[in-house]
Amino acid sequence: MPLIPFSELKAEFKRVLLKKGCQEDIADTCAQLFTETSCDGIYSHGVNRFPRVVEYIDKGYINLNATPTKVDGMGGFERWDGHLGFGNVNAKLAMDRAVELARTHGLGCVAIRNTNHWMRGGTYGWQAADAGCIGICWTNTQPNMPAWGASDRRIGNNPFIMALPRKEGHVVVDMAMAQFSYGQMEAAALRGDQLPVPGGYDEAGNISCDPVAISKTWRVLPIGFWKGSGMSIVLDLVATVLSGGNSSFRVGQLGGDEYQLSQVCIAIDATGIAGESFLSSAVNEVLADIKDSQRVNPDQEILYPGEKEARTRAQNLAHGIPVEDVVWNKIKSL
Amino acid sequence: MPLIPFSELKAEFKRVLLKKGCQEDIADTCAQLFTETSCDGIYSHGVNRFPRVVEYIDKGYINLNATPTKVDGMGGFERWDGHLGFGNVNAKLAMDRAVELARTHGLGCVAIRNTNHWMRGGTYGWQAADAGCIGICWTNTQPNMPAWGASDRRIGNNPFIMALPRKEGHVVVDMAMAQFSYGQMEAAALRGDQLPVPGGYDEAGNISCDPVAISKTWRVLPIGFWKGSGMSIVLDLVATVLSGGNSSFRVGQLGGDEYQLSQVCIAIDATGIAGESFLSSAVNEVLADIKDSQRVNPDQEILYPGEKEARTRAQNLAHGIPVEDVVWNKIKSL
Repeated sequence: MPLIPFSELKAEFKRVLLKKGCQEDIADTCAQLFTETSCDGIYSHGVNRFPRVVEYIDKGYINLNATPTKVDGMGGFERWDGHLGFGNVNAKLAMDRAVELARTHGLGCVAIRNTNHWMRGGTYGWQAADAGCIGICWTNTQPNMPAWGASDRRIGNNPFIMALPRKEGHVVVDMAMAQFSYGQMEAAALRGDQLPVPGGYDEAGNISCDPVAISKTWRVLPIGFWKGSGMSIVLDLVATVLSGGNSSFRVGQLGGDEYQLSQVCIAIDATGIAGESFLSSAVNEVLADIKDSQRVNPDQEILYPGEKEARTRAQNLAHGIPVEDVVWNKIKSL
Repeated sequence: MPLIPFSELKAEFKRVLLKKGCQEDIADTCAQLFTETSCDGIYSHGVNRFPRVVEYIDKGYINLNATPTKVDGMGGFERWDGHLGFGNVNAKLAMDRAVELARTHGLGCVAIRNTNHWMRGGTYGWQAADAGCIGICWTNTQPNMPAWGASDRRIGNNPFIMALPRKEGHVVVDMAMAQFSYGQMEAAALRGDQLPVPGGYDEAGNISCDPVAISKTWRVLPIGFWKGSGMSIVLDLVATVLSGGNSSFRVGQLGGDEYQLSQVCIAIDATGIAGESFLSSAVNEVLADIKDSQRVNPDQEILYPGEKEARTRAQNLAHGIPVEDVVWNKIKSL
């Protein structure tokens, strides 16, 4: 598998975006975010996803050169319209603005409607943390998971992100409300593997680790069963109400593709509030204690949320970002 | 089982609190919250828990007549010290203050340290929603769950609440990061029941629904496996950093009992932002769609988060709150 240097991968993304008619600054930001996501090891939402985003440009779902505008505001809260611009560029702008609001108000919230898939949600958590802020954000999605007790898919997997800044490496949780993504289940099925933990139900109605059996029902499991189902519903409703945009239900009525989403970005000025020294010492002693836990498998280190991404980033920056041949050739052909 | 009218149950709680030396206004608020929690059907954190709270008063963990004071503020954010007052009274005050801040700043956040167990976390979500606000809040706890990959308990189950106001009934998620509470597992074990879904690991290291087997390892499962483990860690860290208080790690060093906790209450003025009419219509169409899902079990209605509590409340208000004889006698003897 080729290892592509960060700058080369970014340049290739940017080339394609410019060719599609994207203006310089948006192409640059969008390419940067796709490259960072790939560099952190989230290939599914970075390099592997890029061809599909180009398809969405061609289908007219993404309004290449749109930039969000502010619709309304109330103190530390603002509502924006994304005008169907690039999801990742829009979400970055929303979190940037939430951070600005947090500088003035202690905390800030931007809800954005009419936006597109933001690719890796964790990106905006890392971004808030880079600015010394706690970042909390989520998006709705198309309906892709049954509610608890239901067999047809009417709620989204609505990823939720929570990030905390730390000099030695941010702490970042980035989790969809489904236990596994479709991509993860399809990949496991292709490899002939079982899922490491239950991911859904088989046709007999039993909880299953078998991705093939689950794909026959598409009754995928929410995290924590009824809990993740409930959280998915509330995340969707709050994003809808605050942005004045589409709910997952409405997105599902658009015809099957996933666009016109609603998102929320909250930033809290953690460094301003807590001071860098308390922040670091309080967080470090907790993480040290957790990492010192008794291990189930002596060879399996206990990682804090975000630790794996930070390590992958360091490695990929040093050696290049692994890109599958078929994906790399596809992107070069665009 | 006796069915106790709301007013009688509240009067009984209040009598005990006054006898213990609690001042009138605090006793009244505390008794009201215990009764509401019981009335909503969350007996474990209401009437069944009350005797243990009295024990904590006797042990000196709860400073009966303390009220929180503001330590610091920055726009819509404020940090408070709970001075070890009643957890539920303190948390109510924190969410009340967050709602006030939201009226001015669009959103408000109060982080409170040196406080006590807030009993049912959902209470403060319902409270924010009653005020027309979105409420988001969480608490840390003593370490009671292993981090993902660990076998000893070093993280909390840190309940997380998210609530949305709605005229026809608020939407409220109230979920601990552990799949089941110790109380739920002990009750299932006593009844000789299996858990409805996996709740932990047995001694052979297999995922198990058997509460007795799980009690031999206390390797209880976080919701969503690694996901809930990560979210628990971040919730604890954010509460610690924003309040300047104890982390779960520090709470665990206090000697085994659970006090001196850190909590965060966020309120967003949803009604002010979205307007009551959009809020209702957007939410209602989503809930109607979800409730109309195909059912796994035709006799099992799909409920939205908070629906069960609202129904139980109506029933218990009409017919009285069921209290187990042994608990009722115990409380009357205090």
